[in-house]
Amino acid sequence: MSTIAENLKNLGVVLPQPPTPLASYVGFVRHGDLVFVSGQIPLKDGAITQTGLLGAGVSVEEGIAAAKICAINILAQVNIACEGDLERIVKCIKLGGFVASTPEFGDQPKVINGASDFIGQALGERGAHARAAVGVAALPSNVSVEVEAIFAVR
Amino acid sequence: MSTIAENLKNLGVVLPQPPTPLASYVGFVRHGDLVFVSGQIPLKDGAITQTGLLGAGVSVEEGIAAAKICAINILAQVNIACEGDLERIVKCIKLGGFVASTPEFGDQPKVINGASDFIGQALGERGAHARAAVGVAALPSNVSVEVEAIFAVR
Amino acid sequence: MSTIAENLKNLGVVLPQPPTPLASYVGFVRHGDLVFVSGQIPLKDGAITQTGLLGAGVSVEEGIAAAKICAINILAQVNIACEGDLERIVKCIKLGGFVASTPEFGDQPKVINGASDFIGQALGERGAHARAAVGVAALPSNVSVEVEAIFAVR
Repeated sequence: MSTIAENLKNLGVVLPQPPTPLASYVGFVRHGDLVFVSGQIPLKDGAITQTGLLGAGVSVEEGIAAAKICAINILAQVNIACEGDLERIVKCIKLGGFVASTPEFGDQPKVINGASDFIGQALGERGAHARAAVGVAALPSNVSVEVEAIFAVR
Repeated sequence: MSTIAENLKNLGVVLPQPPTPLASYVGFVRHGDLVFVSGQIPLKDGAITQTGLLGAGVSVEEGIAAAKICAINILAQVNIACEGDLERIVKCIKLGGFVASTPEFGDQPKVINGASDFIGQALGERGAHARAAVGVAALPSNVSVEVEAIFAVR
Repeated sequence: MSTIAENLKNLGVVLPQPPTPLASYVGFVRHGDLVFVSGQIPLKDGAITQTGLLGAGVSVEEGIAAAKICAINILAQVNIACEGDLERIVKCIKLGGFVASTPEFGDQPKVINGASDFIGQALGERGAHARAAVGVAALPSNVSVEVEAIFAVR
């Protein structure tokens, strides 16, 4: 079985330094073996990669790409919680996916699969998570996707 | 005190085989004595029972009925987590209710009561839960209601 | 280090008797050392203080004030969970902030800072929490903000 670090290398993903929260809170809180990760947005190299509503100009493919970046930022937070040793991840327990949507848009699950699939590829069996995906009116800085998470770690 | 199975029988509810998730995730994750249940939609016998926005064609009564089906599907997931022995449920800790709403609609609590009341009827004292009910822009497959949950089990 | 009660006094905040839930659920559920607090709305002395959408008539400043009242109501619930001894609070683990928003509004983090900043002022180091802030289509009774929380207590 490959390690999470090996999986990330095979996926061509380098975890970034976690983005600074836009507001007065922290990126994650650990309590016992649970890590609660703050809602992550599609922020890469300090720039937002995707804004706008699904169903009004943003394609499902663009939404999927944005959701993947959210998930990479989630894993970057968990990496800090694990002091850089990703093998201390026991499992991804839950993702909460928020998709900025018009009232007519119904493909939130496909969009949030961009996050879920990445977590599955990176964590293997440890990546099977519970999930809710909903379509919201708007998101911080008008990003298209936001994803929060709960992990278990050692 | 009656068992949950007896309560369900009195309510005329037969728990279904849990619906297959629409996407790359699992129906629930158990960690310790907590069970995190993925967002459930009004899916019955493989068919979606209610689509559309509250405040634009879908009545509060239809929303309540949809929320109840979401809660039945939640209990079907917890039933699997408990290996078919519902008496292993310690309590329902939290429901998160999402109601597809127009900006003018404000009766999300009444709608999500369709889920909360059912959980209360089925679980008795073990059914008293924390809750958030919010109105979202849109939901997967344009369903009217989605409900997620956290349970404690033995 | 000052106690939470001292901090509240310095902030000029008296915790209210927790508002009665609008629906068939309870204000909080304690499980182990975790307290899950139901979504709180801007309700003060029995009256809703702020309705309407951010981005359509409600200012960011009004949203911030509403979010602070939600956080006061959260702390009032946790106070009951701690049997009136706020020093039993170990930490605020997570806030979930929902802001009734037009599709164009993107300052949800600023609004929910009204809750986060208050929690930080009241709890000090114990107040550093994970957070998600999203913009929803509508909220119960058309309030502008709703905030839910998870705390750890002794």
